[in-house]
Amino acid sequence: MDTSVKNVIVEKAKTSKIDQVDFNNLSFGSIVTDHMMVCDYKDGAWETPKVVPYQPITLDPSSKIFHYGQSVFEGMKAYKDTDNNVWLFRPLENQKRLNISSKRLAIPEIPEAYFMEGLKALLKVDQQWIPQTEGSSLYIRPFVFATGKGFHASPANEYKFIIACAPSGPYFSGKVKVLIEEKYSRSANGGVGFAKAGGNYAGQFYPTQLAVAKGYNQVIWTDDNSHEYIEEAGAMNIFIRINDTLITSPTSDRILDGITRKSLIELAKDEGINVEVRKITVKEVVEASKNGTLMEMFGAGTAAVISPISAFGFQEKDYELPELDKSYAALLKKRITDIQYNRAEDKFGWRYKL
Amino acid sequence: MDTSVKNVIVEKAKTSKIDQVDFNNLSFGSIVTDHMMVCDYKDGAWETPKVVPYQPITLDPSSKIFHYGQSVFEGMKAYKDTDNNVWLFRPLENQKRLNISSKRLAIPEIPEAYFMEGLKALLKVDQQWIPQTEGSSLYIRPFVFATGKGFHASPANEYKFIIACAPSGPYFSGKVKVLIEEKYSRSANGGVGFAKAGGNYAGQFYPTQLAVAKGYNQVIWTDDNSHEYIEEAGAMNIFIRINDTLITSPTSDRILDGITRKSLIELAKDEGINVEVRKITVKEVVEASKNGTLMEMFGAGTAAVISPISAFGFQEKDYELPELDKSYAALLKKRITDIQYNRAEDKFGWRYKL
Ligand SMILES: Cc1ncc(COP(=O)(O)O)c(C=O)c1O
Ligand SMILES: Cc1ncc(COP(=O)(O)O)c(C=O)c1O
Repeated sequence: MDTSVKNVIVEKAKTSKIDQVDFNNLSFGSIVTDHMMVCDYKDGAWETPKVVPYQPITLDPSSKIFHYGQSVFEGMKAYKDTDNNVWLFRPLENQKRLNISSKRLAIPEIPEAYFMEGLKALLKVDQQWIPQTEGSSLYIRPFVFATGKGFHASPANEYKFIIACAPSGPYFSGKVKVLIEEKYSRSANGGVGFAKAGGNYAGQFYPTQLAVAKGYNQVIWTDDNSHEYIEEAGAMNIFIRINDTLITSPTSDRILDGITRKSLIELAKDEGINVEVRKITVKEVVEASKNGTLMEMFGAGTAAVISPISAFGFQEKDYELPELDKSYAALLKKRITDIQYNRAEDKFGWRYKL
Repeated sequence: MDTSVKNVIVEKAKTSKIDQVDFNNLSFGSIVTDHMMVCDYKDGAWETPKVVPYQPITLDPSSKIFHYGQSVFEGMKAYKDTDNNVWLFRPLENQKRLNISSKRLAIPEIPEAYFMEGLKALLKVDQQWIPQTEGSSLYIRPFVFATGKGFHASPANEYKFIIACAPSGPYFSGKVKVLIEEKYSRSANGGVGFAKAGGNYAGQFYPTQLAVAKGYNQVIWTDDNSHEYIEEAGAMNIFIRINDTLITSPTSDRILDGITRKSLIELAKDEGINVEVRKITVKEVVEASKNGTLMEMFGAGTAAVISPISAFGFQEKDYELPELDKSYAALLKKRITDIQYNRAEDKFGWRYKL
């Protein structure tokens, strides 16, 4: 396959919606920019990416996306520094992960150049939409889904790859209270949990609604076999600090290999923090809470950045986390956002200038 | 909620595509009829079902179906007898199961009358499309998906419920060779395997492609923890005959509660066959094959009806099933299709006249 892209076709919107947006009061992922990138897969190949005015998609009712859940996505952000330069954070990691997800869902992989050139062309056209307000950024949503037709449970022969963008504020409004799940599960051994596949998210909604009804914001998933091991949250990997050690679960075929997670592991080590990547039991966390050695828990993800957890529920009981003056969460959040917004040195080479 | 339907709105197609169809050479699920039923969920309620000409759907790119896999479906058939009467088979079971699936995916449930009245109005308009050819029927696909917008992993606030139909021939062209899966899994304990959720199917495509590349038609899924227990196939429940006993796995939160499966259990008992609904290990089946007591294996589902299995692969070895003169598969297939096509008495009251 020819993996180079000659020219991304750009068709500009006649008018802009940007004047209608209050950039000081952005919610998360609800306002879209003027354009989107579209790239179709037909006759065994991806066509040239196009940037077009953001517009509805028209599909046959038998398109496989409606029936067989063949869809994957990514979540990235573009950041603007005080000099109006635009930055991405490890974008090639998202590009690679999209293909890892696609492969597991029998979706054709997208050549790196199609992803990167399509993305760059889109961000160039919609540059004005990248917020400069503290804590805000342009959330970028690449996604791929099956457009091929037929009521037969088999992979589609046509797909659509789209990138859309939404200027966004924080994902959570405050600290997060989580419920450790003991009945429902997010993923199976040998399943698709490591992929950013649409179906993984729909399956979480109902158990999350039950948790929300009990006063929690999020579910922490455990393994589906014993429910003894802490895995991850709906859209975040989980870090736990016991004494001065920072612990996070190893990734597996059930857990998403988060880019924030792996960046934080490196940053924590760089700060001289003792990091352990190992399986962690709910029992251990409950005991640490009881004997006062549980110092912090936080979620880590592109959308949520670092979200400190205020308390966790387990077996009808709530366990509060202490309020710390100098938390690892605050330290690591400063380190990672300083790199993302070009406010500090980037010794790992993660920043990507547009 | 008002669960009665006053009037299904019917808007007829100006022209019909029926003359272009060769009813003697129907494939499965690739040709659609002239109309479809559409019912939208908005502002907390399902609107009145409409029958409209089969037509494309227009959606915003941020509609949650493209991102979070919130979709469920059903598979049913309409049968025409020699007097041109039209029959459904246990349609209320599909209606109930659609809601069981919806609930697990945080999709609003559909009142029985909306489902049944919408379906009946559609089949009335597209009656001519129900094939009378032996082995053919009208495959009916009810499906529900999230149309509500936003890049936030949470349930949508708007949905579309559609019923589309496809005159169809057999699902498999011959006997089926299956591979017993030892690495990949279809579903998790506490997951969504019991639901007819889109994401369950996409997750099966890649492992199935690997099996097809090795010369098999289908994968037989095993439990995700030990891979020791036989569960079901991609779109069929599995029956195994050892000596004269017919065995099938109990349903669980990992296995779809198939309507064909439960009907066959009753029909087999009615025939005086010893039926066991119990967990069955791969080991037991391999041993039965080795000592000559494994008589039959077959899949059961609406699309596939009863599909005899010719051989199964396990740990790089193939095990052939014997050719029987008087198989349970043939006997039960005759019993169930005679009821479906109104060729025999229906003492269970499963047939539903339109
Ligand atoms: C299930 C899940 N886990 C973890 C993450 C965090 O991954 P990343 O840091 O790459 O955004 C995400 C989302 O992005 C996710 O959806
Ligand atoms: C996973 C799965 N198992 C079993 C079946 C059989 O169920 P039913 O007999 O209700 O069609 C189906 C499909 O219809 C299915 O998708």
